[in-house]
Amino acid sequence: MSHSETEALDVESIRDEFPILDREFDGTPLVYLDNAATSQTPDQVIDSISHYYRHYNANVHRGLHQLSQEASIAYEEAHDRVAEFIGASGGRKEVVFTKNTTESMNTVAYAWGLAELGPGDEVVLTEMEHHAALVTWQQIAKKTGATVKFVEVDEDGRLDMDHARELITDDTEMVSVVHVSNTLGTVNPVSELADIAHDHDSLIFVDGAQSVPHMPVDVEAIDADFFAFSGHKMCGPTGVGVLYGKEHLLDAMQPYLYGGMMIEKVTFEDSTWHELPWKFEAGTPVISEGIALAEACDYLDSIGMERVHRHGTELAAYAYDRLQEFDDIEILGPGGDERAALVSFDMDNVHAHDVSEILNANGVAVRAGDHCTQPLHDKLGVSASTRASFYIYNTREEVDALVDALDQARELFA
Amino acid sequence: MSHSETEALDVESIRDEFPILDREFDGTPLVYLDNAATSQTPDQVIDSISHYYRHYNANVHRGLHQLSQEASIAYEEAHDRVAEFIGASGGRKEVVFTKNTTESMNTVAYAWGLAELGPGDEVVLTEMEHHAALVTWQQIAKKTGATVKFVEVDEDGRLDMDHARELITDDTEMVSVVHVSNTLGTVNPVSELADIAHDHDSLIFVDGAQSVPHMPVDVEAIDADFFAFSGHKMCGPTGVGVLYGKEHLLDAMQPYLYGGMMIEKVTFEDSTWHELPWKFEAGTPVISEGIALAEACDYLDSIGMERVHRHGTELAAYAYDRLQEFDDIEILGPGGDERAALVSFDMDNVHAHDVSEILNANGVAVRAGDHCTQPLHDKLGVSASTRASFYIYNTREEVDALVDALDQARELFA
Repeated sequence: MSHSETEALDVESIRDEFPILDREFDGTPLVYLDNAATSQTPDQVIDSISHYYRHYNANVHRGLHQLSQEASIAYEEAHDRVAEFIGASGGRKEVVFTKNTTESMNTVAYAWGLAELGPGDEVVLTEMEHHAALVTWQQIAKKTGATVKFVEVDEDGRLDMDHARELITDDTEMVSVVHVSNTLGTVNPVSELADIAHDHDSLIFVDGAQSVPHMPVDVEAIDADFFAFSGHKMCGPTGVGVLYGKEHLLDAMQPYLYGGMMIEKVTFEDSTWHELPWKFEAGTPVISEGIALAEACDYLDSIGMERVHRHGTELAAYAYDRLQEFDDIEILGPGGDERAALVSFDMDNVHAHDVSEILNANGVAVRAGDHCTQPLHDKLGVSASTRASFYIYNTREEVDALVDALDQARELFA
Repeated sequence: MSHSETEALDVESIRDEFPILDREFDGTPLVYLDNAATSQTPDQVIDSISHYYRHYNANVHRGLHQLSQEASIAYEEAHDRVAEFIGASGGRKEVVFTKNTTESMNTVAYAWGLAELGPGDEVVLTEMEHHAALVTWQQIAKKTGATVKFVEVDEDGRLDMDHARELITDDTEMVSVVHVSNTLGTVNPVSELADIAHDHDSLIFVDGAQSVPHMPVDVEAIDADFFAFSGHKMCGPTGVGVLYGKEHLLDAMQPYLYGGMMIEKVTFEDSTWHELPWKFEAGTPVISEGIALAEACDYLDSIGMERVHRHGTELAAYAYDRLQEFDDIEILGPGGDERAALVSFDMDNVHAHDVSEILNANGVAVRAGDHCTQPLHDKLGVSASTRASFYIYNTREEVDALVDALDQARELFA
């Protein structure tokens, strides 16, 4: 597949590449709108996994035999491929494979946070952080005596940047901010936040779980010190996440998971560490998963991330407009042309779980709950919301199917 | 496939189920003897992974839609299946999916060790521990002020049990012991060690990475408090490991990785934790990997673990006998009928890396190096060894191919 960046997506031919989209439930076709939780997987990536196990499955790094060499090269080059995908010029030295975004976050919280934070130090988060960041920094702060502060979200679902400038001070050691809110669809000004953080000699960790799959991302243009995302939200497999870190920062950090592969020399008394990124990948790593993630990068680049982005935001704007028609629906987050590829909403008189079940009966898969942002939901006064999230294979007709199915919920619970 | 436990394995039909075994290098067929590093994967398991992505890929636990329900049931039941495979009567509550054995080890070292260990406390390891245990407990001891002691390995490659009884005292808080040595092939008396540990109110962690794939294992018969192993060494995929823990112990432990899925209630100020095992599985878990691991358990049980065990030990005994014929070969570890399915050896005048390269040129894949047991190699006075490790698809003819290829090494370096 090869497309010009200016053409619209050929959604029909993209859909043909995703076998799961053929599923039907009692004759009702699947309308998969739960992409912010997990995206679907194209043949190219599924085949890459099968090919790995059928042709060159072996442990990496340590083996001199042919299979191990093939697996090692593919696994190590996958780091370079992912580095290229996010604009990390340091290549593999700046890309650690973890099992998910959450582990990437915890790696920095443990390896950097436990060593560097103490009483008087502050970590600045936002009220829209995912639990992966919020709970992690909250608990690491408890262990170290540091304080966590939260940049407020305004009534339009945007960060209060004046509040951010107020909160980020010379006491701030880390700013941890979500690039795209998985609940509000807000795209945060992470580059501006990086500048503010750096003006105060603070580091910044950007949670890119919802941005990397959906838009061109350049971690160096953002000037993020750390950046994390997951494979399973970007056409890749489960079981692999990425931690990007500036080389000098990763280099200065001590590892926190210990075992084989990450060591240089071990005696009964002490150990020294392997070079980057391997010192952060203890034990047999996520070999087939990392290789398949690189394949997912190839797949997305063959479409073009600008076009992926445009398609997702257009669908979200269309969904926003259609849902806006209803008085009993409150959409969370900013307006239709300023949001990422998702729309979360609250429906009068119908709990999100009931909305979700009725949609499911119509083949429409959405997410209902707090989307791992409980404190944000509490602040918004909504116990749970329904989230429709889009990707390259979704269509306007699927948005219409969502809106039509909501009528049933309305009738049932009127 | 269904076999009686008394019949020998039908190795030819087993080989047909492993597509990678058809590989040839310049006409030389692959002889894969690196199973202690990573085993190969049968069609049944590869197909289970493809089937997941083609039919029910979705995020688990939180979704109400059909795909998420299917994925959740399969993923959660995979925990029960693995529990059954190792005799954990508590089911899923006692089985945490991690990314590898190393992470399982670190989970206990962080979640239990950091909280419970202090100056005066002792952790007893053995000299044959894999780096996953050795480096982890060594570094956690440094953080807590605890002391690590090592049970000596005698000249036959067995644990000095008198020394074990001497080292394990009322100061011992944890005994961490490898079930089967990945270097020596020694099968350790873990049940006896558990009794000694428990007599002194110590816990015992058993590293089962090399036992669970190769023999029937019953964690309750052993009376292990914690037990760990990996999917990729037992016909399963990369990216999944298991931590078994007695329910009351896991229940009392605080989690150490924070994020979504593992929480119950989150506010900006604090958080509470989900029930077992989910409180130890932060973020999107290793979904396809965990499901495929359960499939690997089905596959191995269809063969019968008693038969898997007998086949492996018979091959190892045969390899031991054949290698014993040569004066220039020193085999590490105990005699032929007392060892697990692997043989490591040192060859006079030829470095293990050279042995491995010459074997590779003959299609024979073995491992050369320290096998993540550097201190043990130092003690044995061997900088590196060559390891041939066997599994259900290996044959005596493959052992012969190994022995024949060694002649070439002998000639080249004579």
